[in-house]
Amino acid sequence: MNEPTLAERLGHFAVENGFDTLPEEVVDSVRKRVLDIVGIMVAAAPLPTSRAARRWAAEQGGRPQASAVGLADRLPATLAAFTNGVLAHSLDYDDTHLPSVLHPSACVVPAALAAAQATGADGRSAIAAIAVGLEVCVRLGMAGYDESTRNSVFFEHGQHATSICGAMGAAAASAVLYRLGAQGVTNALGVAASMASGIIEANRTGGTVKRMHCGWAAHAAVSAAQLVAHGFTGPPTVLEGRFGFFQAWLHGAPDRSAITAGLGEGWSVPGIFFKPYPANHFTHAGIDAARALRARGLDLDRIESIQLGVPAASLLTIGAPIDVKRAPQTGYMAQFSGPYTVVAGLLGGGGLGVGLDDFTDALAADPRRRRLMALVDVVADERCSAIFPHQFPAILRVRTRDGRELVEEVLTTRGGPQRPLSFDDLATKFRDNAGRMLPSDMVEQVRDRCARLDTRTDTGELLDPLRLLDELDPAPY
Amino acid sequence: MNEPTLAERLGHFAVENGFDTLPEEVVDSVRKRVLDIVGIMVAAAPLPTSRAARRWAAEQGGRPQASAVGLADRLPATLAAFTNGVLAHSLDYDDTHLPSVLHPSACVVPAALAAAQATGADGRSAIAAIAVGLEVCVRLGMAGYDESTRNSVFFEHGQHATSICGAMGAAAASAVLYRLGAQGVTNALGVAASMASGIIEANRTGGTVKRMHCGWAAHAAVSAAQLVAHGFTGPPTVLEGRFGFFQAWLHGAPDRSAITAGLGEGWSVPGIFFKPYPANHFTHAGIDAARALRARGLDLDRIESIQLGVPAASLLTIGAPIDVKRAPQTGYMAQFSGPYTVVAGLLGGGGLGVGLDDFTDALAADPRRRRLMALVDVVADERCSAIFPHQFPAILRVRTRDGRELVEEVLTTRGGPQRPLSFDDLATKFRDNAGRMLPSDMVEQVRDRCARLDTRTDTGELLDPLRLLDELDPAPY
Repeated sequence: MNEPTLAERLGHFAVENGFDTLPEEVVDSVRKRVLDIVGIMVAAAPLPTSRAARRWAAEQGGRPQASAVGLADRLPATLAAFTNGVLAHSLDYDDTHLPSVLHPSACVVPAALAAAQATGADGRSAIAAIAVGLEVCVRLGMAGYDESTRNSVFFEHGQHATSICGAMGAAAASAVLYRLGAQGVTNALGVAASMASGIIEANRTGGTVKRMHCGWAAHAAVSAAQLVAHGFTGPPTVLEGRFGFFQAWLHGAPDRSAITAGLGEGWSVPGIFFKPYPANHFTHAGIDAARALRARGLDLDRIESIQLGVPAASLLTIGAPIDVKRAPQTGYMAQFSGPYTVVAGLLGGGGLGVGLDDFTDALAADPRRRRLMALVDVVADERCSAIFPHQFPAILRVRTRDGRELVEEVLTTRGGPQRPLSFDDLATKFRDNAGRMLPSDMVEQVRDRCARLDTRTDTGELLDPLRLLDELDPAPY
Repeated sequence: MNEPTLAERLGHFAVENGFDTLPEEVVDSVRKRVLDIVGIMVAAAPLPTSRAARRWAAEQGGRPQASAVGLADRLPATLAAFTNGVLAHSLDYDDTHLPSVLHPSACVVPAALAAAQATGADGRSAIAAIAVGLEVCVRLGMAGYDESTRNSVFFEHGQHATSICGAMGAAAASAVLYRLGAQGVTNALGVAASMASGIIEANRTGGTVKRMHCGWAAHAAVSAAQLVAHGFTGPPTVLEGRFGFFQAWLHGAPDRSAITAGLGEGWSVPGIFFKPYPANHFTHAGIDAARALRARGLDLDRIESIQLGVPAASLLTIGAPIDVKRAPQTGYMAQFSGPYTVVAGLLGGGGLGVGLDDFTDALAADPRRRRLMALVDVVADERCSAIFPHQFPAILRVRTRDGRELVEEVLTTRGGPQRPLSFDDLATKFRDNAGRMLPSDMVEQVRDRCARLDTRTDTGELLDPLRLLDELDPAPY
């Protein structure tokens, strides 16, 4: 017998890791990720792009199989996955795997919830499918990570690893929920590899298409599983073959061990970083350092200067050009500003310390914040650079008018495995996200259903209450 | 004012080239390509993969906007494009652009017909949109063609240029039909670039997913146009940007002139090669040479040996391993056999000389054909290699038992610009394809509607009669 191909290995992995075999920490992690993604979807529902996605999906119509946030009528599972997937990634608030720097849950969770509802799967099946999908996604992302350059080959070539690897992970999760067996999962990976897509030029010159990437990937993933159920097949060597995924996306054959090492034994899932703050991930450690100084009682009126030290690689994103970063024109631009985020941390805010309400256009232009931002320099720090991108660290130095220097070092990222967020922490984030759109009793109901997802027989009840969101509060923010 | 980006150039090109500005030869060419693709779709309708595509699309359901071959109920335009796109490429009988070696009509025509029907566009609008879509597709394919290696960078890396560039061309065509304007076409290209996909590992190790590529691309293209209509936007630098299409798929910035040279002045469309025979394109010149010898009255019983000279680059596909190529196990394998196709040409067949009925499993195993195939050698020929891949030539040398040598050189490919097929030629191919599933009066009706597409006010009537195909003749072949 031939050695199984990588996609065959993943197919077996997917069906052999049912709920009963999952480590408790994996189950806990998946429950948190579902809560997190659902909250983000609710918060993202009023965005113009979210409305566009809903209008498009509703215009398609079709068999009512699964629930989409903000649409009263159920949709085909493919379109529900699309709509919810658009919402899940649109706020850049979803989880991140390091050092691959991809966002696994935004594709996998919406696809799996749609497939679970359409197939009548229970909560335990959904949890197991999501765990498998996240693991497949992360391992493919790591196959593209190059330690020598500390960069992802995907990103180097403008490919969006999030949606490309996300489509693959979500296809594995969907295939498990459609009960296609190991061979069916392998085929779904083979089909999804010909649907996986996403280029990131929009990050450079604009366009809202990136907000759609995870929706399209989730939709492709559910479609791939369904098409395999109807008889389509993929090549067994879809990953490592001469004309396969690695050749196409990574320009050659990467280390197989990214896929196979410890597969089914060690899980990447609990180590995926949650985002406590609705801002670029590179800003988080600076926010934490600022919050710590605030807790130490720093008097903001006595600050003479602030130096934010970060990894050299993140300087371009959050520190340059410094004049622009000190005067963000919009709340969105503030999310990518080292000076703004440090000031937000110093002032304190909602959610887990800084929430969505702390990134409004008005606050970005607030004179007091602008005055404080003018005091902030962002510099490359060698110690921070040394541990990037395994962590996104920061060292904050504040000089006061009386000549003192206060220093806060944040070398591990909050929300990652060294500084985990508990379910209750994520419930705080969830309330900040979902509470802006939903009455508090419904917020707590959905939170409770996520907390007890492993005891639910009907996964549809998770998103069903959110179908009427538009009627509850249609106002965009 | 900044110089327009490449996608902006294509956007202006798309809206500035309405029907009234098109050269007559472009209009003629598009009419032929529609006839050709519709015939292929009908012939492909009974394939198991075609049935799977129909079942999947029907299972989605949705708003009845456009007609799909073999489905009584109309579908959303996106799903009609999918279903018809799967059929259009499944027989490998659709047109080919050289030297990019991609198949432009299989994505563009199904997408445009679905968008035209859904928007109520008339025949002239559909023709103009298809012309634009084919031109965009071909130019992107040529951006990936490397004359120094005579290979496409897409294919070198396992990327299916047909579906990737096809999605882009089809998106431009769809955006024109949805009347999105120049900016809308640019945005549709920007959105479709994040949906374009397709890897060709299935050509190596199996799986039916490649049959789905053009369907998925057509479906993505119509979706992209619709999503832009609802407000999504793409990056204007989607092609040439640092993280754009060229970087992602071609590993860098190719010559811009592939996109811009003579845009709107010279058209690639009439030069796209039709396939007269339902076999790998590399076999066609050999078939023609064999047919010429048959016309010269060659007595097959007096053949001692046959030498088929072809470009070195095509040897692996149609000539090796020679024992396998001399004894194809199925009709499908016979399509990739130099020996089989030469023998089929010598014996004569249906359609334009050799038709679908000449590639059955039974004929592949036919003892007389096997005996003749045993006489065939396939060799690399220098003169043929020199003009590949601009043509797919062949030189056939037959030695007879009385010591004579008969030689036929076919240095230009039938169906290409030097040896064009007329509308009547393509009607012959159409009858061979559509006639196996449809009664002859309906065959002639559809042929007539394609011939007069520029006078039709309702493009839907082209495919509407084909919705009931399953009831007419459901038997697979």
